[in-house]
Amino acid sequence: MDKGRLEAFSDGVIAILITIMVLELRIPAGATGEALRPLTPIFLTYVLSFVMLGIYWNNHHHMFQVIDRVNGRILWANLHLLFWLSLIPFVTGWMGEHYSAAVPTAVFGIVLIMAGIGYTILVRVLVAEQGADLRLARALGSDVKGKVSLVIYAAAIALAFVDPWFSDALYVAVALIWLVPDRRIERLR
Amino acid sequence: MDKGRLEAFSDGVIAILITIMVLELRIPAGATGEALRPLTPIFLTYVLSFVMLGIYWNNHHHMFQVIDRVNGRILWANLHLLFWLSLIPFVTGWMGEHYSAAVPTAVFGIVLIMAGIGYTILVRVLVAEQGADLRLARALGSDVKGKVSLVIYAAAIALAFVDPWFSDALYVAVALIWLVPDRRIERLR
Amino acid sequence: MDKGRLEAFSDGVIAILITIMVLELRIPAGATGEALRPLTPIFLTYVLSFVMLGIYWNNHHHMFQVIDRVNGRILWANLHLLFWLSLIPFVTGWMGEHYSAAVPTAVFGIVLIMAGIGYTILVRVLVAEQGADLRLARALGSDVKGKVSLVIYAAAIALAFVDPWFSDALYVAVALIWLVPDRRIERLR
Amino acid sequence: MDKGRLEAFSDGVIAILITIMVLELRIPAGATGEALRPLTPIFLTYVLSFVMLGIYWNNHHHMFQVIDRVNGRILWANLHLLFWLSLIPFVTGWMGEHYSAAVPTAVFGIVLIMAGIGYTILVRVLVAEQGADLRLARALGSDVKGKVSLVIYAAAIALAFVDPWFSDALYVAVALIWLVPDRRIERLR
Repeated sequence: MDKGRLEAFSDGVIAILITIMVLELRIPAGATGEALRPLTPIFLTYVLSFVMLGIYWNNHHHMFQVIDRVNGRILWANLHLLFWLSLIPFVTGWMGEHYSAAVPTAVFGIVLIMAGIGYTILVRVLVAEQGADLRLARALGSDVKGKVSLVIYAAAIALAFVDPWFSDALYVAVALIWLVPDRRIERLR
Repeated sequence: MDKGRLEAFSDGVIAILITIMVLELRIPAGATGEALRPLTPIFLTYVLSFVMLGIYWNNHHHMFQVIDRVNGRILWANLHLLFWLSLIPFVTGWMGEHYSAAVPTAVFGIVLIMAGIGYTILVRVLVAEQGADLRLARALGSDVKGKVSLVIYAAAIALAFVDPWFSDALYVAVALIWLVPDRRIERLR
Repeated sequence: MDKGRLEAFSDGVIAILITIMVLELRIPAGATGEALRPLTPIFLTYVLSFVMLGIYWNNHHHMFQVIDRVNGRILWANLHLLFWLSLIPFVTGWMGEHYSAAVPTAVFGIVLIMAGIGYTILVRVLVAEQGADLRLARALGSDVKGKVSLVIYAAAIALAFVDPWFSDALYVAVALIWLVPDRRIERLR
Repeated sequence: MDKGRLEAFSDGVIAILITIMVLELRIPAGATGEALRPLTPIFLTYVLSFVMLGIYWNNHHHMFQVIDRVNGRILWANLHLLFWLSLIPFVTGWMGEHYSAAVPTAVFGIVLIMAGIGYTILVRVLVAEQGADLRLARALGSDVKGKVSLVIYAAAIALAFVDPWFSDALYVAVALIWLVPDRRIERLR
């Protein structure tokens, strides 16, 4: 099976997710700068989620460069990742409106850690199905960044109940770790 | 006519449908775990519909692998399928909010059975138009899974008026039947 | 310039338009069949607009089959058409909620006639720019269907102030005229 | 890395942005012409933003014609541009509802100037990464139109606090400057 439609479908879903989040930025009733101020935490959460989805899209793009064909297992591993990503607008809106509350901050982290696990599963499935071609397996190596992210997310979920600001700092830290695209794969090409 | 744009358009519509359903998960007013609890049935219905649309996308993807060209009749059979799929977010939201009520549960099944019929019609049109190439006709054979699904949907619609939980169990059963992608076509390639 | 991105962009916009209309089908508060009844005119208007957008997508698809390259003028003629199509969800929702009122019914027709004019302009620009290749010009011939549609729309707009049902019947008539894809172009290929 | 997915993703995001703006045109409660009148400024702002996004899409389309490959830096410069474009529906809705107020009009300009800067950065990154191929660098030359636009936007933001109509006139002026597609690149092909 050709990978083209899987890429197009994933691009479509991520493009829609990254865009509908902006619908959570509800137009303020007033016309002054003060009317805009309550939107600040929602806006900052939007920026964070935009970057997170951008990272997923970039890494997805990189990873599928070295893939030639897809099959049913890969399609479903990919849909599983997209499912968790699809919840990002919801948790972004909820955390944005209650940025100082523990539960929305922790739930934001739970969706991110599930998306991270979904991405890890997708990588594993791709490596397993592309057995003959070891380029991808070698390229991903021990996947240190992926494992570190999952640990940081777990810490962020727990720390949300101490102080949500710790969690926010950790979410930003993960984004910064990933903003550098995966040179390991780029080097292969 | 080339099949590329039909695939791209269908991918676009299904990607949008699978994503806008998440807009029905309205952000709760509170910031506690209890505020999230009333969303549970809506969330579970969302998961079911996400899987259903994922199945349609996967099968659509598989089926068009063996198609070379499209014509006006195929375009309209495809649009007819997309029409019924486009109603899934609506019935998902309605059933999610009234999960113990008979009518929304039955209407959910009516949209699913119409989408199933739409898919069957699309298969028939493809087989008829690709007469010379019998690969597809042979591949689909007697289409047991498709017929069984329609029977289960019909039972689910009727049973919604006895107890909606019977219907929910049957909808999940259809999803499980289809989660295995159509090996009959994969084998051909 | 390659026509691929123009097709992909148009497919994307039409796929989104055809899908977001369903957001106008607001989930009823009740869980009974009666709760669904007030949605009937909105649902029927949705069906009509779905078919209309499907016709535009099909004809767009057909027409660009015989086009090789695009330029700035073609891009803008295409965006002009997409602009009027983008208003269809708005007028669909308004007419659906006030199906027996003159003004929403007439405004629905105004958007349709403007989209029809936009399509005619796009055809003209394509014929002008593809001068050397007369296949398209010959294929479209005198464009009887296009002209007849504009006349019917004009009549429907005027008749909305007599009785909106006349207009509705005429909108359905135009849809039926176009449901047959444009054989003139198909014949060329 | 192939540029295809970057183009497809950008097309998707811009197609969604240009379409969801229409959701700000809320369906009026009444069914008369007067009910439509309060929508006039929102509609005109929608037209302006539609043209602006159309210009970005056209220029993006033109520019990537002369690009062969993309890398991580280009992906992120492109996502940065898309981020500012993603705020256009929000500021369009806000300015449309408060068209005579200074702050929404200025904020509209701030988003446009940031998008303009994002586009300039993208051009710079593309020129830097495509060093060997000087076609793009020569094609863009001194980028007079881009610089003029940024100056006009800055003036419009300041003048919003004198009279928002000055700003509106300047926004329209920028749109008119760009409606002519970038012949400099078209000439190269």
